[in-house]
Amino acid sequence: MSAYNYQLLLKHVLQHGVGWVPDQEIIYRNQVRHTYSAMYQRVLRLGGALRALGVKQGTKVGVIEWDSHRYLEMYFGIPGIGAVLHTINPRLAPEDLAYTMGHAEDEVLVFHEDFLPLVERVRPRLPSIRKYILITDKTEKPDVKGVDAEYEELLAAAIPLEELPDLDENTLATMAYTTGTTGRPKGVYFTQRQLSLHTFSAGLALSAFGNYGGVNKHDVYMPLTPMFHVHAWGMPYVATLFGLKQVYPGKYEPEVLLRLILGEKVTFSHCVPTILQMLVTAPAVKGLDLSRWKVIIGGARLPKGLALEATKLGIKVYAGYGLSETCPVLTIANLKSFMSAWDEDQQLDWAIKTGTSIPLVQLKVVNAAGEEVARDARESGEIVVRAPWCTQGYYKEPDRSEELWAGGWMHTGDVAHVDEYGYVQIVDRLKDVIKSGGEWIVSLELENLLSLHEGVLEAGVIGVPDQKWGERPLAIVVPRQGYQGSLSADMLKEHLNKFVQEGLITDWSVPDKYVFVEELPKTSVGKIDKKVLRSRYAM
Amino acid sequence: MSAYNYQLLLKHVLQHGVGWVPDQEIIYRNQVRHTYSAMYQRVLRLGGALRALGVKQGTKVGVIEWDSHRYLEMYFGIPGIGAVLHTINPRLAPEDLAYTMGHAEDEVLVFHEDFLPLVERVRPRLPSIRKYILITDKTEKPDVKGVDAEYEELLAAAIPLEELPDLDENTLATMAYTTGTTGRPKGVYFTQRQLSLHTFSAGLALSAFGNYGGVNKHDVYMPLTPMFHVHAWGMPYVATLFGLKQVYPGKYEPEVLLRLILGEKVTFSHCVPTILQMLVTAPAVKGLDLSRWKVIIGGARLPKGLALEATKLGIKVYAGYGLSETCPVLTIANLKSFMSAWDEDQQLDWAIKTGTSIPLVQLKVVNAAGEEVARDARESGEIVVRAPWCTQGYYKEPDRSEELWAGGWMHTGDVAHVDEYGYVQIVDRLKDVIKSGGEWIVSLELENLLSLHEGVLEAGVIGVPDQKWGERPLAIVVPRQGYQGSLSADMLKEHLNKFVQEGLITDWSVPDKYVFVEELPKTSVGKIDKKVLRSRYAM
Repeated sequence: MSAYNYQLLLKHVLQHGVGWVPDQEIIYRNQVRHTYSAMYQRVLRLGGALRALGVKQGTKVGVIEWDSHRYLEMYFGIPGIGAVLHTINPRLAPEDLAYTMGHAEDEVLVFHEDFLPLVERVRPRLPSIRKYILITDKTEKPDVKGVDAEYEELLAAAIPLEELPDLDENTLATMAYTTGTTGRPKGVYFTQRQLSLHTFSAGLALSAFGNYGGVNKHDVYMPLTPMFHVHAWGMPYVATLFGLKQVYPGKYEPEVLLRLILGEKVTFSHCVPTILQMLVTAPAVKGLDLSRWKVIIGGARLPKGLALEATKLGIKVYAGYGLSETCPVLTIANLKSFMSAWDEDQQLDWAIKTGTSIPLVQLKVVNAAGEEVARDARESGEIVVRAPWCTQGYYKEPDRSEELWAGGWMHTGDVAHVDEYGYVQIVDRLKDVIKSGGEWIVSLELENLLSLHEGVLEAGVIGVPDQKWGERPLAIVVPRQGYQGSLSADMLKEHLNKFVQEGLITDWSVPDKYVFVEELPKTSVGKIDKKVLRSRYAM
Repeated sequence: MSAYNYQLLLKHVLQHGVGWVPDQEIIYRNQVRHTYSAMYQRVLRLGGALRALGVKQGTKVGVIEWDSHRYLEMYFGIPGIGAVLHTINPRLAPEDLAYTMGHAEDEVLVFHEDFLPLVERVRPRLPSIRKYILITDKTEKPDVKGVDAEYEELLAAAIPLEELPDLDENTLATMAYTTGTTGRPKGVYFTQRQLSLHTFSAGLALSAFGNYGGVNKHDVYMPLTPMFHVHAWGMPYVATLFGLKQVYPGKYEPEVLLRLILGEKVTFSHCVPTILQMLVTAPAVKGLDLSRWKVIIGGARLPKGLALEATKLGIKVYAGYGLSETCPVLTIANLKSFMSAWDEDQQLDWAIKTGTSIPLVQLKVVNAAGEEVARDARESGEIVVRAPWCTQGYYKEPDRSEELWAGGWMHTGDVAHVDEYGYVQIVDRLKDVIKSGGEWIVSLELENLLSLHEGVLEAGVIGVPDQKWGERPLAIVVPRQGYQGSLSADMLKEHLNKFVQEGLITDWSVPDKYVFVEELPKTSVGKIDKKVLRSRYAM
């Protein structure tokens, strides 16, 4: 039969954008400004160059780079010839970096010269890498030893491919490593089909279902989640499919970001709360018109206070959620049509929730008994999902893969409740939840309520073993100045019992035991270190 | 491995809509008004009922029905259990109807009582059908002989499925027959995967790329292309994915349509030019506010005059294109972002073109030499396509299937040119094009130009065999009153040569020979019958 067997490939995403708007612009800082057509030609050159270097189907190509037009080319060009783009997080500890590149068996490493010290440090431990390709923003190629080619010279010298080849849609396209709290980093991997379907579904979630009129052909895109982090949430693929003007900011520097947002009229971005916080508090932001800017916030909960600050500046914020394991998008806090009638404050309350499933995502919140929780915004359970773009396992780790997919659902490790409209809200990590008498007690909720007592500076709640209940909550409390020595367990129980009366928590979630300390151990990013607390108190 | 092998199935389209807006409305005339949840329960009942009737994976279920909430249920419920929905066009000649149902080997026929006379006429020739299910809009079941069940009674008595089963995405889901100008009707067929991908891509084309702000979660949908015709252009699937309020008008009656459009606040529809013409000229339309109504026009060229008439009423019209063989959507005349700067009239000129490819559609216009035509809105060629949703052949017709897919591209039989912005415009059917000296002469263009001569009432142009050139154009002309006997070949050549001077046509497209007649043979729909002309003159 001559009928064409159409495979879902990233090249079709690229070709749609190029065909639709060949003259649309792609911008890198104040250094590069070229068209989709030019980008496509560079992708074909990149493909030719990589093939000439011996890159074949399945070859892993590691990349350490800032957000750039080059990274966008590599998003398409490396998988475009059937090779695997390994996006490397330069923030990994050198130990983990060497481990992941060895574990992935990277054969080529493309890296920005800013990361040269890092690369030189791990290089002795990377025997699998055959070719080093240097990226520089300078016009003169720096004199670096042990580098096989400079990226622009490589492209200039390449014989471009006539076209990107047809591949099986189940060909591996990208991989990345995620660092958990325990054990070695784990590799996640995605096929051409997975990335294509993620692009279509995320695209629909942003356009047909989107807030503030949705993202559409008129938008201007700039990422503010690094491209080394789960495909910058898949948005460069969506932006290319839509043929949007794309702006790449390189290394994130507040003044450069603001200049690009205003100068290039950026209307759509995405970032973690920390970056939004940094931007809204930057002195330069005062008096600027940011009213055309829609920003999806993910990676951590979007606090109402920050959302209000952003809203005051005219920025249109809403939340999204996903994991490295899920490509990443699972939910977006898109408002339903009937909510347009709500007042703005109530709309914002829903726009900052974890959200609802994007098309094709099957999402359940299941309690300890494996049943779906009630839609009462109270009962909590673990989020488990199925989507066409979930990693099918952890790379070369069959046991952890089985654990991830126990029972045929992917376990996110996130604990959430669901409200009457079907909006999910994450409240804790599963490992921090206290399992008491077959029910779950959310540690974050208790910590928040304890912190409302005037004598409490901060509090950490962990589960400690209990013969009767399995686990019981223990509160470790730092008293505020003036309350040292006077703050007592009874005062705090009485405080929490008020919330039991109000129906906010159940009576069995009130901790029986309290420990008063001078300070709490913290992680490197400033969160309470529950691991340390457990090792100290949960004997 | 426990990882879930996610298949692209129509049930995921349905489940997304139901999960997103369980209380959204689905309306049938003034007779039914229920929710997505209720619809989903009815789909599960339908699945249970069909299984109880012995319907299995691959069983063909024929349906003859007006546009209704029931048809929507069957769009999901019949493929939902792995059976094949055969959408039957009741306008087929009884001879063709019997042939197609026999060829498809339909085992169950669901039909509206309005089509009872038709069904009784063909019934003796349908030995494959085991079960007849009657649909009625009446509250009392009519007393019809030889019917196994009435649709509502069947649903009421059914044991609903607990859920729709997981299927392989390549399971056949729908089929239909297309009548060409020659030979028996041909069967086209589509899988769960094909319909799912068509839904996502058409959805994106309407939302992210759409005109007039695009179609999104706030829209209200009503089809005006019958649901028996290529899945009503796939739009009921898109509307369900988006969770739109859906309005089904039953048999098309102008006053019912207008009442529903206004009463239910319909904002999105699609139809052929004839239906639009009927609506804009209906006396009832005067003074009505239709300014919220976006309508995609397909099936035939949207004339500028009609588009202007609609625009005057506030209706937002734009064109789309596809074939029964392509599920159907291939292109939509979506305007590019930069065209927003154009004046309204110029925008309308582009919005009524055949359009540009929707995502994943690869479309080429190739000349007789097989090369892509220049983007000059002049050189014409045949549209050939690849898309994930093209029929993989004609059902049980290997030879015609190979012809359809010659060279790995699906041949549409439509002749078009492409402008500098990449917009396609269909100008002729391939069988009507005159192949002269390796070049193509578009008969429709010559006919239009000839009709501009004051002495010409109408003209038909066909190709006649020529030893040197292969074919040469012959013009068959009906002179206007007062020109009979006086209109000459030289006058018409001189007339056409003016357009050669202007660069509108090439000099070799000017016909050498002219025949003057009193009238032209017409087809049943009023088009010039080229087949008859060829049999008379192209010996």
